[in-house]
Amino acid sequence: MLEDKNQSRTSLSELGEFKLIDHLTQHTVIHHKDTVKGIGDDCAVIGQGKTQTLVTTDLLVEGVHFDLSYMPLKHLGYKAVMVNLSDVYAMNGMAKQITVSIAVSNRFTLEALEELYAGIQLACNTYKVDLVGGDTTSSTKGLMISITAIGEVEKEKCVYRNGAGLNDLLVVSGDLGAAYLGLQVLEREKQVFQVNPNAEHELDKYTYLVERQLKPEARKDVVQLLSDLEVQPTSMIDISDGLSSEILHLCKQSKTGCQLYEDKIPLDQQVISTCEEFDMDSTTIALSGGEDYELLFTVKQEDFPKIKANPNFSIIGHMTDEPDLIQLVTRGGQKVDVIAQGWNAIG
Amino acid sequence: MLEDKNQSRTSLSELGEFKLIDHLTQHTVIHHKDTVKGIGDDCAVIGQGKTQTLVTTDLLVEGVHFDLSYMPLKHLGYKAVMVNLSDVYAMNGMAKQITVSIAVSNRFTLEALEELYAGIQLACNTYKVDLVGGDTTSSTKGLMISITAIGEVEKEKCVYRNGAGLNDLLVVSGDLGAAYLGLQVLEREKQVFQVNPNAEHELDKYTYLVERQLKPEARKDVVQLLSDLEVQPTSMIDISDGLSSEILHLCKQSKTGCQLYEDKIPLDQQVISTCEEFDMDSTTIALSGGEDYELLFTVKQEDFPKIKANPNFSIIGHMTDEPDLIQLVTRGGQKVDVIAQGWNAIG
Repeated sequence: MLEDKNQSRTSLSELGEFKLIDHLTQHTVIHHKDTVKGIGDDCAVIGQGKTQTLVTTDLLVEGVHFDLSYMPLKHLGYKAVMVNLSDVYAMNGMAKQITVSIAVSNRFTLEALEELYAGIQLACNTYKVDLVGGDTTSSTKGLMISITAIGEVEKEKCVYRNGAGLNDLLVVSGDLGAAYLGLQVLEREKQVFQVNPNAEHELDKYTYLVERQLKPEARKDVVQLLSDLEVQPTSMIDISDGLSSEILHLCKQSKTGCQLYEDKIPLDQQVISTCEEFDMDSTTIALSGGEDYELLFTVKQEDFPKIKANPNFSIIGHMTDEPDLIQLVTRGGQKVDVIAQGWNAIG
Repeated sequence: MLEDKNQSRTSLSELGEFKLIDHLTQHTVIHHKDTVKGIGDDCAVIGQGKTQTLVTTDLLVEGVHFDLSYMPLKHLGYKAVMVNLSDVYAMNGMAKQITVSIAVSNRFTLEALEELYAGIQLACNTYKVDLVGGDTTSSTKGLMISITAIGEVEKEKCVYRNGAGLNDLLVVSGDLGAAYLGLQVLEREKQVFQVNPNAEHELDKYTYLVERQLKPEARKDVVQLLSDLEVQPTSMIDISDGLSSEILHLCKQSKTGCQLYEDKIPLDQQVISTCEEFDMDSTTIALSGGEDYELLFTVKQEDFPKIKANPNFSIIGHMTDEPDLIQLVTRGGQKVDVIAQGWNAIG
C-alpha cells in the first residue's frame, strides 16, 4: 500500500495558525483578474464592477471551538452564523447568503439538529440572510459546522485591513473582554456541576458575559451607522482573536504602528467586577480574550467630530509611523509593547 | 447546567441525507430577490444580472469519505477540489474561486499538509481556479476538508435540474462505474496488505479504475464542448451518488419519468472485466456506484444530430410523462423499475 516516505516531520504546533496558512498558501497563483482580494483579509473580494462579492468561511469543531455541555445547540447555530457575518461586516459590506455544512456523529438525534437549525434560521431571519445550500454528512466523532457567507459591497465602500494611514484614529465598537469572561464563568459552572449536579446555578451576576459568549451579535448596525455618519473607515477588521492580535493585523498590512491607551479600552461594568472577582487583569482580557465580534477600524483625523460623541464607538488610539510596533500607554503613563496573543492554536 | 429536556429522539439513520436536508431546511425563508436558486440544485444561483454567481460546498470527512491508508494526501486534495468544481460545471458554469477549510488532529505533520495543499494547488492551476480563502483549525480526531466553490454562468446558459421535458434525450459524458470498482480494488489490496505487508501489489490490471477513484477529473471540457456544439441542455446534474440517484433527481424536479436502456450505459472494458472477476453486475455498479463525476443531462430531440456521433457522449434514454417512474429496459427487453440508491448514509 501507499506509505509515507517523507522522513521530515514538523509538528503543526510549532507554527501556529497564521504562519501555517501563510506557509501552505505561499505558492497560490491568481488566474482571474476579478479575484480582487484572495487570502489575507476578513473576506475574499470578487468582481470588477461597481458592486463586489465578498466570501468568507469558518469552521467550528466540537471540543475545539465549543463545548455542548454548556452551549445549547440553538445558540451554537446562531453563533456559527454570527462568526461569518462578522467577517462580511468587517469589509463594510452586507451579508446576503450563507451555506451551512455539518458533519455529525450518530450520537446526535434529529431533534438535536432541529435545535441547531432553529438557531441558524433565527440568525438568518434576524440579519436578513438567505440559507442557500450546504452539505450534511456523518462524522466519526462529534459535530463540525462549516459555514460560508456571501456578501456584497460597493467597490468604493469596501474596506481592507491595509488602508490605515499615519495618525488615523483607532476606533472600536461596543466593549471588549465579556465573551472571554463568559466562557470562564461557564467553565467554572461546568466544574461545579460535575462535582455536584444539584448545585444551584450562579449565573445571575454574569448575564451579560454569558450572553456575549453564547449569543454574540455581529455588528451589522455599525456598517449602517458608519454609512449614515458618512464615515469611510481607512481599514477594518473584526475582533475574533482579541484586540492585540487584530491591531497587529491592521498594522502589519497597513505598514504602520499603533499607540493604544489603556484607559480608553471600553469595558462593561460586569467585566470589571468579574475580573476583580477572578483576580484577572481586565486590560489583558480585552487584549487577548477574543470572540467579541466587535469591529475595529481606523478613520481619518477629520472624521473625529463624527465619531467622538457616538456611544457605539470608543477611540482607543492612533496609528504611528513605526511599522508593527504596538505600544500600550498604561493608566500610569508607561509605554509597554503589545505582543499578539489569542490565536487559535493547532495541535 | 443545560440539559436536553427533549424526550423525543429520532435517529438520523432513519432518514437518510436528502430527507434530512429537506426536513432541516423546510422553514427556510428567502429575503433577497437576487437569490435566484437556494437549496436543491448542484449550486445556489445568485444575481439578477446577465452574469450569475454559482456557489456550492462539500464536506469530506476522514473515515467516512476517504481512507488515508490508500488515498495519498495529494490525491485527496485534488479530488476534494474536483468534487466541488463538478457541481459548478453541472450548472453549465465555470468555476473561478474556491475556499478551503481544514480541521486536522495533531497526528498530521506540516509535511502531510503540504502534500494535501500540493494537490489542491495542482487542481487550481489545472482548472484555472483561484484559492481565495479558508480556515485552518485543529480537530479532536482525523482530517476534515470543507471546500466552497464560486463560479459564474451567463443567465441564459444556466442549467437547472428541473428543465427536462417530455421526450428529451438523456445523455451522459464518459463512462460509469469505474470509480466504485477502483474503491473495491483498493479495499481488497488494503486487506491483503494487512495480512501480508510484503505482498506484491496487484494493481496493474486496474489502473483506470484506481485512477478514477483516486484522481477523478471534473468535466469542465464538457461545458466547453456543449457551448462549441451550440447545445443548451434542458437539465443537468453531476454523477456523484450513482446514475439511478441522479436520474431520480432530474425526474423529480422536472416532473418527468425516464426510460433508460441497459445496453446504452457506457462502461469501460476494465469495468466489464473486473465486474466479471468480482462476480458483480456491471449495470448495478453503474447505477449505484457513484463518484464518477460525469455530467448527466437532457437535450431536446432536435439536438440529436449534434450529440450522436460525439465520442464524449452516450445517449442512454429519454424522458417520459410518468413522473418519477424510471424504467430500465434490460438487454433482454424487459422493463424493470429503478430505485435510487447510493446516497451518503448518516449514522
